[in-house]
Formats: sequence, structure tokens, C-alpha cells
Amino acid sequence: MKIGMVGSTGHNGYVFSGVAASPEASIAGVAPGPAEDGPERLVSGANRIDQSPKAFGDYREMLDAVKPDIVTIACHYADHAQVGIEAIKRGHHVFMEKPLATTMEGFNALRAAFDAADVQLSCMLGLRYDPAFMTAWRAVQHGAIGDVRLMTAQKSYKLGRRPEWNHDRDRFGGTIPWVGSHAIDWLHWFSGAAFERVYAAHSTYANDDHGGLEASALCHFTMTGEVFGGVNIDYLRPAKAPSHGDDRIRVAGADGVIDVSGGRVELIDGSGVREMPLEPKREIFGEFIDQVAGMSMSLISAEDAFTTTHACLLARQSADEGRIVQF
Amino acid sequence: MKIGMVGSTGHNGYVFSGVAASPEASIAGVAPGPAEDGPERLVSGANRIDQSPKAFGDYREMLDAVKPDIVTIACHYADHAQVGIEAIKRGHHVFMEKPLATTMEGFNALRAAFDAADVQLSCMLGLRYDPAFMTAWRAVQHGAIGDVRLMTAQKSYKLGRRPEWNHDRDRFGGTIPWVGSHAIDWLHWFSGAAFERVYAAHSTYANDDHGGLEASALCHFTMTGEVFGGVNIDYLRPAKAPSHGDDRIRVAGADGVIDVSGGRVELIDGSGVREMPLEPKREIFGEFIDQVAGMSMSLISAEDAFTTTHACLLARQSADEGRIVQF
Repeated sequence: MKIGMVGSTGHNGYVFSGVAASPEASIAGVAPGPAEDGPERLVSGANRIDQSPKAFGDYREMLDAVKPDIVTIACHYADHAQVGIEAIKRGHHVFMEKPLATTMEGFNALRAAFDAADVQLSCMLGLRYDPAFMTAWRAVQHGAIGDVRLMTAQKSYKLGRRPEWNHDRDRFGGTIPWVGSHAIDWLHWFSGAAFERVYAAHSTYANDDHGGLEASALCHFTMTGEVFGGVNIDYLRPAKAPSHGDDRIRVAGADGVIDVSGGRVELIDGSGVREMPLEPKREIFGEFIDQVAGMSMSLISAEDAFTTTHACLLARQSADEGRIVQF
Repeated sequence: MKIGMVGSTGHNGYVFSGVAASPEASIAGVAPGPAEDGPERLVSGANRIDQSPKAFGDYREMLDAVKPDIVTIACHYADHAQVGIEAIKRGHHVFMEKPLATTMEGFNALRAAFDAADVQLSCMLGLRYDPAFMTAWRAVQHGAIGDVRLMTAQKSYKLGRRPEWNHDRDRFGGTIPWVGSHAIDWLHWFSGAAFERVYAAHSTYANDDHGGLEASALCHFTMTGEVFGGVNIDYLRPAKAPSHGDDRIRVAGADGVIDVSGGRVELIDGSGVREMPLEPKREIFGEFIDQVAGMSMSLISAEDAFTTTHACLLARQSADEGRIVQF
């Protein structure tokens, strides 16, 4: 299984970790994304797991020369869709950083390319593989809280100093799609309900001179069956906080409530309150490799990746335009 | 200081507790609210704190006979405004259960009566006096987290079996005004910002045969200065949960984050994370008695009570009509 990596932005750790755990996989080629400088970080990352890929300056040359089975894409966010389309058109399976696109035009073009091809696609919504979130999700799927009624999800990150292109909303794509995508993904993943409409707001205030990067956002999703989902997103976590992120979800159902916070899962049901033992850690990219090999299914289907990206873009549109947006 | 009590619904515990702690106050008269049966519960409650009020069958008779300095009002929620108006027109100060009104007509009539009179008004937004919320609020006022940017607040209650009139939206007024009022109140109390618009949703699903009583609700408030506030409200807390309510607020500011949950307050700021020692418990009604006596100010001004009620009614309107409502 030949892996071609494009871009050294985002969560390539998933790729390295998955390849290291998959004896049948090797990193055959690497190249920078369209707006990136060079492949050096990819080469050194691959070397650290005893992989020796060929390095290219242009990702299309890499695709044509290496002909990877799977192309991983983690470049500047505004370039995800374009690189994805180039890979899909060549018939490669793709494992993409989220959001899949930062414009509706890019989203539609990627969707059309995917629909016209016979490839598999997944994305780096890695928090589905976080043991706490996976444990809570499986409990909900098994009926631990009955029908899902009300969800509130949080993504809070430390800001630090972000690269200049993150200050440019057109290149960055916005905090709702970048940071919020995980939490927005949880809403349809946990509930099984479909998005119907969204109302959102975001603000660049208190962004510590990061230009167009929004430091706070709040989204209100209405889903099928009168299921509601709130998502609060911020870059306001203090530098001295004990962890980079403070990811949370609370899911209230007809028969119970489940809370994920600080890596712990608490369930309240008809028996009272208890902490749940966590499921073992699994490899997000390793499972996509297995899916491509026909052995199993990843937790993140192509439909999941498109649904979440679409919801992110409509939420951002709602915040930009100050109005309710229908799905 | 003569106290007249109207109604035996809601939080009369605040009144009894405040009178017990205020030697200058006595409960002179009690009467049921317009839709209630009789004054027996009020008499027995008063007797428990060694008070022997005169009991009346009609609250207007009580007001005219006793001429209380302060009238406390905690009857069926749809009757708050009417009783408040009758008391205010007679020149009595009023300590009212929240929400002050369950219709915009009632709200406007109460507001007009209050503006035309020379009386003082406060209400039973008792969670401002909860030690954890008061501690967090004071820390925020003292700049512990810098400018407030993003708030998320939660009210979750056990449902149990509610009386029949709670099943009737016209009598009950709705879960957003009744349960949500506390959390909506925190938003302007903590931030000092004014409400600009609201988008909300609510649902009667999973309400265990409680007619029109909404079991879940989600509100999105936009406030001045691009401050955002989310409020999630539910009656889905399982019967075996360790407490009746699960009240929370998280306030993210430019310089820190403060969390109130489970009666604890956690602050993250430039020094790291720490739990805050709680302020001592204070008496909500005792402080209103002191305010009427000219000795101090209650934490809940008349303007606060009107602002919170207005925000509740507009949020409910948004949820009923499925549209953004401007303040």
C-alpha cells in the first residue's frame, strides 16, 4: 500500500502513526501543498518512522510519479479541495485534513469529482477516535441515554502565535470550519439526526492581533426530530491552562445524560451516575488503510466528511451574514 | 416591616428564610394566588418560622386589609404580572417570582405600572445568590478573565411529575422563561453587555406526557460588543442523578476562563488553573428587605428583573416562530 503525502500542515501525526502501525503501508512520496515551501518536514517526519519517501517540489508531479494508493492531504486549508480533486481525478483514495473545503465552490467541485470517481475518502476528524469521545458515542449508540434530544459541544484552544496565513480568512477558512468542525461533526455522529438549519455568530475580538482569525464563535443547529445542538468555539484558552484544548460534549437524551470533559466520560441513567471505563485507543489512519484494503470500515465515512464540511460552511455563512441558513 | 405573601407556588423558601433572618420583618398576611386553592401552605410555612399571619382567601382583600410594606408574589406563573400590578398600584414594594410576566402584554402592563409608581421591585433570581455563581460573578467583575467574550450556560432539572397547570403552556409560560430565566439572567449579569438578538428552539418531545411543557430548549443570544451567549435548558436530568439541578456557566474572556459546575468554581488565568474559595451564603430576600429599608442594594435590581423577563419572552417567541428576534 503506497502512501503519498501532500502538505505539512495539520495532523500528519495521524498518518505517521498509522503507517508505523501498518506493516503493509509505506510512504512512497511526499510533496508540499500548493502554498507551502518544501517537503523537508515531511521527509524528516517519515524518516523518524523509518520511511524513506521520494521528495517532490510539486504534489502533482509526486502523484504522477509515485501513483499512490492513498494520498494524504494536509496543507493550507484553502487548498484542501484543489489537492483532493487532483488526487481523486487520478483515481487515488484520499485521506484529507478537515474541512474538506473552505468555499462552497470548492466543496461542490470536490463532491462532483468524488461522485464521478471510484475512490474512497476519509478525513482527519480525529476526535472520533479519541477514547473518551468514542466511548461516549458507542454508549449512546447502544441506547445508554435513549433518544438524543439536546447536545452542547465545546472546542476551546490556546491561541499562541499562528502563522500569517491563519490571519487571512480566505486562506485560513475561518475558526468555525477549522476548530469547530470536530464539535459540529459530533452533533450528527452522536444523534444520527440530519442538519436542518443553523444560526451562528463569530467575532475577531480578543484575537491578539491575528487579523481575520475569529477568537470566538457560537452555533445553534436545528436537526431532524427537534434535536438541537449548540457549539461554542474559542481561541481563548489561557496559555497556562493544563492542556492545549478543552474539548467537551454533553448529550441529553430521553433516558439519560452523558458528559465528556477532560478526557473523562460520565453517564447518568436510570441507575444513577458513574464514570465509564474508556475504550482502547485506535488508529484513525490505520483503519482507513484497512478500509481501502477491504478489511473493515473507518469510523469516518466519505458521507460523514462531506456532511460535516457542509455544515461548517453553512454555519460560517450564517455568522458572516447574520441570518438563519437552511440546509 | 410588614410582609404580605401571595401564592404558594415557587420559591417562598426565600421569603421564609429572609424573614427568619430579619428581626424587623414580620409576615402580616397571606393569600393564595388567583388560580390557587387556599392559604394553608403559606400559613403552615409561616408558622414554622414562628410567624402568625392573617390568612385571606383573596389576595386583593389581603393587600387592602394588611397594607404590607412588601408583597411577595409566587403564584401560578401566568398570574405574576396581574398580582404584581395590583400590588404596585396600591403602592407596595414587590418581591416577585420570575419571570415577572408570561406574555408581552402582561410584561408591558407591569412595566407601565412600575414606571408610574414609586415602589421598589426585585425578583427570585435566586441563583445570583448561590455562592458559586456569586463567587464567579464577582471574580469576573474584578477583571479575573478580562473582557467577557463567550458564555455558555446550562439549566437542567429532573422532571418528575409536574402539576396539571404546568402542562398548559398558557398557564405555565414555557420552559425557557421558567427554567431558563436564571441562565439568561447570568448572561447580562456576568458580561454587562446588553441583549441585541436571540435565536432559540424548544421541543416538547420526551416530556413524559406533560402536554405543552418543553423538555429541551437551546438559545443563542447576540449581545453588544460581539459578546455571545448560549443557553441550554432541559428537564432531562435522570431521577437518580445526585442533585435536582445541574446548573453551569462557562465564561471565556480575553484573559481567562471561569467555569461554574457542581457548585464549584474553576478559574484559568495567566497564573494557571485553580479552584476558587466560595463566598459566604447571603439572603436574597433579606437583602431586598434591607434595600427597602434604605440600608443597601439587592443584587437584583428592578431593571435586572425586567431585562431578564423581556429576554426570556423574546427567546420563547423566537422558538415559537422559528426566527431571529431583535431586542
